[in-house]
Amino acid sequence: MDKTLIFGHKSPDTDTICSALVYADLKNALGLEARPVRLGDVNKETQFALDRFGVEAPELIEKVDDDVDNVILVDHNEFQQSVDNIQDVHISEVIDHHRVANFETKEPLYFRVEPVGCTATILNKMHKENAVILSKENAGLLLSAIISDSLLLKSPTCTQADKEAAHELAEIAGVDLETYGLEMLKAGADLSDKSALDLVTMDAKEFTIGEANVQIAQVNAVDTSQIYESQAAIEQEMKRLISDKGLELFLFVATDFLENDSDVLALGSAKEKVEKAFDVSLDANNRALLKGVVSRKKQIVTNLSEQF
Amino acid sequence: MDKTLIFGHKSPDTDTICSALVYADLKNALGLEARPVRLGDVNKETQFALDRFGVEAPELIEKVDDDVDNVILVDHNEFQQSVDNIQDVHISEVIDHHRVANFETKEPLYFRVEPVGCTATILNKMHKENAVILSKENAGLLLSAIISDSLLLKSPTCTQADKEAAHELAEIAGVDLETYGLEMLKAGADLSDKSALDLVTMDAKEFTIGEANVQIAQVNAVDTSQIYESQAAIEQEMKRLISDKGLELFLFVATDFLENDSDVLALGSAKEKVEKAFDVSLDANNRALLKGVVSRKKQIVTNLSEQF
Ligand SMILES: [Mn+2]
Ligand SMILES: [Mn+2]
Repeated sequence: MDKTLIFGHKSPDTDTICSALVYADLKNALGLEARPVRLGDVNKETQFALDRFGVEAPELIEKVDDDVDNVILVDHNEFQQSVDNIQDVHISEVIDHHRVANFETKEPLYFRVEPVGCTATILNKMHKENAVILSKENAGLLLSAIISDSLLLKSPTCTQADKEAAHELAEIAGVDLETYGLEMLKAGADLSDKSALDLVTMDAKEFTIGEANVQIAQVNAVDTSQIYESQAAIEQEMKRLISDKGLELFLFVATDFLENDSDVLALGSAKEKVEKAFDVSLDANNRALLKGVVSRKKQIVTNLSEQF
Repeated sequence: MDKTLIFGHKSPDTDTICSALVYADLKNALGLEARPVRLGDVNKETQFALDRFGVEAPELIEKVDDDVDNVILVDHNEFQQSVDNIQDVHISEVIDHHRVANFETKEPLYFRVEPVGCTATILNKMHKENAVILSKENAGLLLSAIISDSLLLKSPTCTQADKEAAHELAEIAGVDLETYGLEMLKAGADLSDKSALDLVTMDAKEFTIGEANVQIAQVNAVDTSQIYESQAAIEQEMKRLISDKGLELFLFVATDFLENDSDVLALGSAKEKVEKAFDVSLDANNRALLKGVVSRKKQIVTNLSEQF
């Protein structure tokens, strides 16, 4: 029997989980037995989408078993983002929307990468190409994936094709795009169970800028003021890390991805560099609102680099 | 102005040249200005197809100029088969039917690889997807590519999709598939301007099998007897190489790709290994017909290896 697994990348996001689920259903509708699986925990946003449309998460796997004939990669192609034993398995297909790199097969395959904002947008198209009708549930999952990857159609990566697909899918799924989208993103941005240490370390990167050691931690939220209710505890963790690591600057960035701005907290001897870099004044709480700033790599590091 | 070049692999074959030409026309029909180019000489088979359908060969380039915005790769994706400065250019699309390897971009792109026998088969499909009608000339070029890559639909790499496309395209091009196909393949297999030295060196590989030095040269032809009209001269070149390189065996393989067999000429102290490997007797001219043997790698080297 042909045994085919479909999975997305490690640290799965909503596009990865939903695309694996929906593509497996499409494959089965076309007569190929295929099973969706996942390579990591389901995050809160994805769980919200699954619950809303009454779909179970795919099974977790650690590696691909020896008796699997084929694997299909969705939402990724780079091997380091894939299952650990990816080099030992036969890849029959890739459906993705990322750059192509660190990928290699011995045999020809079906490899489909399109420059759109979400794998789900390609899958919506593939249903049409194969004249397979999407169920309400699967339309809801693909919609959730697009909302997630495009931050409700606001991200610069979102294309016209993603927007059109999202509106179509919302109609089939029977939900209001804006209302449902906000609910889902808020569920994903729920930081209520995170400790102050979690917040300053869960997505932190260290940079050497000029001669200075700079740490920049970022969290995404829909209500940044909620995060700063525990500012005292956050500062305490930051100060400990500044001393432990000998940092000149620790910048904590709370990004409101709906408003497209970031409420930052700067500590360390070089904190005035932040004021110069973004032409703002830190308030008495060492905070400032950076309007239009959401990207650590493209906006924050770049602007700071000019000051050091 | 958007400047886009379309090209196939180095040492271009008929699929590479014809796919570049036809895809450029499709792109232009869809409103993207694109120009087909080539990375090497047009072979005899391809020239026959171009002449038959009254199409000029694309322009030869050595490298991609600085003012080119995008390149589209057809019929290949591995960088070592592509233009020398491929690392410095922006690849916007890949349309191919080979394995994926040694390829990398910084940005997402349109990357379409399908497990069929020929790039032209994918391009035929893309015309339908975009509702663009193929001209008689372009249908003839795509047909020629399929005939070339599939050896007139006989190769094990030829799929049902290639066969269906070939029949469709022959109808649009207004040619008889078999008659035209044979003419084109014969034009490509014309060895009349090759010297005996050309024949024994143009596609020769050296192997160490067991302890023995073995050279295997292969030529493709539709009439192998014609090649052996100059057997005396061929033997003279082989003997010189045996002595120069200290070979135990020199096997000259004249493959009839329509009959699916090879008329081989074996010289050297280990020539009786050929008899054992293929259960044949070399005749008084040191030749034998190996039925069903066409692949140097998968059939000849493998069988010989068991004898040494
Ligand atoms: Mn995605
Ligand atoms: Mn080809």
